[in-house]
Amino acid sequence: MRWAKFTTAGRTSWGIVEGDRVFATQGTPFGEWQQTGQRYGLADVKIEVPLIPRTFYCAGRNYVKHLTEAAGADGVAPEIPKRPEIGYRAQNALIAHDEDVVIPRDATAQVHYEGELVVVIGKKAKHLSEPEAMSCIFGYTIGNDVSERTWQRGDRTFWRAKNTDTFKPMGPWIETAVDLDAMETHVRLNGAVRTRFRTNEMLFGIARFLSAMSQYLTLWPGDVMWMGTDGSSPNLRAGDVVEIEITGIGTLRNRFVAET
Amino acid sequence: MRWAKFTTAGRTSWGIVEGDRVFATQGTPFGEWQQTGQRYGLADVKIEVPLIPRTFYCAGRNYVKHLTEAAGADGVAPEIPKRPEIGYRAQNALIAHDEDVVIPRDATAQVHYEGELVVVIGKKAKHLSEPEAMSCIFGYTIGNDVSERTWQRGDRTFWRAKNTDTFKPMGPWIETAVDLDAMETHVRLNGAVRTRFRTNEMLFGIARFLSAMSQYLTLWPGDVMWMGTDGSSPNLRAGDVVEIEITGIGTLRNRFVAET
Repeated sequence: MRWAKFTTAGRTSWGIVEGDRVFATQGTPFGEWQQTGQRYGLADVKIEVPLIPRTFYCAGRNYVKHLTEAAGADGVAPEIPKRPEIGYRAQNALIAHDEDVVIPRDATAQVHYEGELVVVIGKKAKHLSEPEAMSCIFGYTIGNDVSERTWQRGDRTFWRAKNTDTFKPMGPWIETAVDLDAMETHVRLNGAVRTRFRTNEMLFGIARFLSAMSQYLTLWPGDVMWMGTDGSSPNLRAGDVVEIEITGIGTLRNRFVAET
Repeated sequence: MRWAKFTTAGRTSWGIVEGDRVFATQGTPFGEWQQTGQRYGLADVKIEVPLIPRTFYCAGRNYVKHLTEAAGADGVAPEIPKRPEIGYRAQNALIAHDEDVVIPRDATAQVHYEGELVVVIGKKAKHLSEPEAMSCIFGYTIGNDVSERTWQRGDRTFWRAKNTDTFKPMGPWIETAVDLDAMETHVRLNGAVRTRFRTNEMLFGIARFLSAMSQYLTLWPGDVMWMGTDGSSPNLRAGDVVEIEITGIGTLRNRFVAET
């Protein structure tokens, strides 16, 4: 099932996407819900960020090629982590599918995309074993972990580099039924594929991450975990359009514009 | 005015604290509200976490003595930051006044308190100049940035060290009218003052932080910014009670217990 948050005629609600239509619901997919009987063409509604997570988690370094290429760009040897590293991103930076990423006036040329699978938690959970960890997942969406690399290297934390307003596109919707091993992530820049990787070929899989996290912290419905990215990105400029497609979910598309 | 979130007879709401009583309200202090006419003794209600912030910000290193003492404990020279450093904490870790901090089974002896002033944002704001930055503040509360120092040194991020469940007591309420320069922070361990500092003697003041942050990110009502701590903490053990008192706000008290 495919859940979208959408707005039409000034009203925002959850809906179930089927093909090019969305069937409005009352309530939330994390609790009670029912269809209202109203349906719309997807092209006629505004797609919103699926949710503002309670806690916004991310995987630190989780794909080998991304680490190798990032280290190569810095002229150093890649440092491969020995265990899952849990990081955070900030809610202020979230934007929806088809909204614009705004490049700040003082950003350098090194603004990059990172196409990521996003896990959406559906159940309150703690102390999950690895075999049971996937049971707390509600579904999956797509994230673009937009990063300003000069700030990422120069600041002590990633606050500007990764959490500037609009730097966290997420969507377009949450898909509850996926085949992780069949997934590919394709990132297109202005229509041409520039990065491509098998989505589930992670250093540490989803179950390993969720199990490790839940030994210390309670996962809540609506929390999200961004799983990291592979490969690297060219420098992005105002006018560029980045599309991230993940098999079985869909495509997250955002234009990059200059701050005015 | 002093705003508390409290529960009585199974119902949670905001209320206005006066002396040892709380006057229940409908709505929220960030929008429309009115008194319901009901009042309770503070001792007869359960105080809740004032709010779950949309984004949970913190000041990285913001008091000189804390940096000096922490560096001394590690046998290195203190590194004094040249500009505000913005960090993050996680919503899962928040607990209320009088709730217990649970020390994980595998934590080392180095579990420490950090008494902090917490700024609560009241207005959506971006691109604030330093002179106008304080205008977005709704009020102030108290935080205990509980930290497991071995994890803090050994992990790449602070996820376990600072964001383990219950490691972020916040409260007891939000005070809207304070005199920052008259404030002292006193941290008592089992009744005896162990740490004491002038709350507003920060490396970078509140206005400097909020102005710097808001150049890149939108502040939202209900966001919180923890302002850092001074001094150092002894190792805490199960059974210890930590009270953080800040002039003009009140006292945040939490007991430390062992995970069972």
